[in-house]
Amino acid sequence: MISVGIDVGGTKCLGVALAGGSGGGTVAGEVRAPTPAEGSALLGTLARLVRALATETGDEVSAVGLGVPGLADRDGVVRFAPNLRSAVGLNVRDGLSSLLGGLPVMVDNDATCATWGEHEAGAGRGKDDMVLVTLGTGIGGGFVCGGSIQRGANGYAGELGHLVVDPSGPPCPCGRRGCWERYASGSGLGRLAREAAAAGAASCRRIVQLAGGDPDSVRGEHVTLALAEDDAGAVEIMAEFAQWLALGLANLVNVFDPEVVVVGGGLVEAGAALLDPARAALARELAGQEARPAVPIVPAQLGERAGAVGAAFLAR
Amino acid sequence: MISVGIDVGGTKCLGVALAGGSGGGTVAGEVRAPTPAEGSALLGTLARLVRALATETGDEVSAVGLGVPGLADRDGVVRFAPNLRSAVGLNVRDGLSSLLGGLPVMVDNDATCATWGEHEAGAGRGKDDMVLVTLGTGIGGGFVCGGSIQRGANGYAGELGHLVVDPSGPPCPCGRRGCWERYASGSGLGRLAREAAAAGAASCRRIVQLAGGDPDSVRGEHVTLALAEDDAGAVEIMAEFAQWLALGLANLVNVFDPEVVVVGGGLVEAGAALLDPARAALARELAGQEARPAVPIVPAQLGERAGAVGAAFLAR
Repeated sequence: MISVGIDVGGTKCLGVALAGGSGGGTVAGEVRAPTPAEGSALLGTLARLVRALATETGDEVSAVGLGVPGLADRDGVVRFAPNLRSAVGLNVRDGLSSLLGGLPVMVDNDATCATWGEHEAGAGRGKDDMVLVTLGTGIGGGFVCGGSIQRGANGYAGELGHLVVDPSGPPCPCGRRGCWERYASGSGLGRLAREAAAAGAASCRRIVQLAGGDPDSVRGEHVTLALAEDDAGAVEIMAEFAQWLALGLANLVNVFDPEVVVVGGGLVEAGAALLDPARAALARELAGQEARPAVPIVPAQLGERAGAVGAAFLAR
Repeated sequence: MISVGIDVGGTKCLGVALAGGSGGGTVAGEVRAPTPAEGSALLGTLARLVRALATETGDEVSAVGLGVPGLADRDGVVRFAPNLRSAVGLNVRDGLSSLLGGLPVMVDNDATCATWGEHEAGAGRGKDDMVLVTLGTGIGGGFVCGGSIQRGANGYAGELGHLVVDPSGPPCPCGRRGCWERYASGSGLGRLAREAAAAGAASCRRIVQLAGGDPDSVRGEHVTLALAEDDAGAVEIMAEFAQWLALGLANLVNVFDPEVVVVGGGLVEAGAALLDPARAALARELAGQEARPAVPIVPAQLGERAGAVGAAFLAR
């Protein structure tokens, strides 16, 4: 028997088959498909992915978990999904289940699934108290407390990127100012670099070059590209970025007292060039707290599969 | 059978006897004693309080819970307690148990106990996801997730006052700058008023008067005293204070998505004069999040007994 998890993204769906008993799990198969633009076609696509995994593994499917970029209510209806608007109002749980002959289907938020994935099969394995922070365009995440994944009262828990760290900071689309993700996400990295470039910092030359010569076109990836070339200007920007990252990580450590903080998302591909300065900055942030054991900051292990793997574990 | 909870404070110990079955609990007795300056005398004081409650209720004690202002390790040894230094290194669990003929004793952090007290018998009853924020000299608190009290990996979870909300803000004894409790605690209220008075704000006249005429002597309680007289200057300071309070509450709502936020501590005695502007400011902070049901901000119900009541529930 396998369980299937599908990360239903705004542009693509990624499905995995999870084999193995309750004590562990192995990814036995993987499939992908573009997310259809029409909600009506979505359920068909999902059903095909499930069947493809059954064929690929030659095994029977016991249950399906879906990770959606938003919120589904207790009945399985997607209620809020800015990046998957076509699914809003759709009962993906019952709809998919009926296409699959009554197979049990469960739906959860994608960040919740990713957190559980890293907890069950990734960098948070065996840690009863862990936080996942994903650094992408924004900052997402989730947390495990006392060994259980936490969703909050309405499934909105874990909006870690919207902790305000500077009330006079730049406006955030969420309506507040100075949210952590204005600083410590991919878009925050781009903003820090654009501000440095606009201020005429000579050290930004290579970064601006990589952005095609226009300081206004600088984005986070131009910094990480320059960083991969050991560009001194990029190292400087990254140190400032790491300070903002550590500020928010220290906040999370003060709230959760986790055994480990797992950092995922596209930015973590920068590896030690990101995590080493962040760890150093975190140690400075928490310098007054000698009584507390240091909290390891580790990279996520499941990459883009975290959500699908977590959904498959949650479906079991 | 009763269970006993004792909140072991830096200056006094407050004990309660909890009667009633597993489904609820009634405070059947209450005792107090000054906290002895010597750690060696502490266990004797605690044992006397337990016996006094047994006598007062005429009932047998099944278990004892202690809430300490700091941390005890898994063996029951107090490891960190800046306001109860005499107890550091003392095994209060085994020590008290042996004085009470082997009665089960458990030790927990006082804020953790208070959170559980409000959850079991106060303003958080029946709420699987709740946050307690206590506004005293600093800001303390704790949280319940998925119906369980959460302590974190080392018992340090819930340091809610040390979420940095402005990295260029005033220094905090914890070593960071701009911690939430620099703004939204009793001492933060005093600081806001002193700054307004130092800036020569005419509206602070009454507050300064209450502080004996010296702007530098203004503390939080002078603002709440003036507020009780409906002083317009105090209302103004409270509006600024409420904005800072709401900023941090919005952060906690974004992290936890709680069913309710319970606000306790001395400041909550200001009642509607504090909570109404805080609720209005929170609604502004979360204005972009129409999809989320509004989170009730309610005053704590157990007052200074919360820690003892929670310790008694945890001891059961």
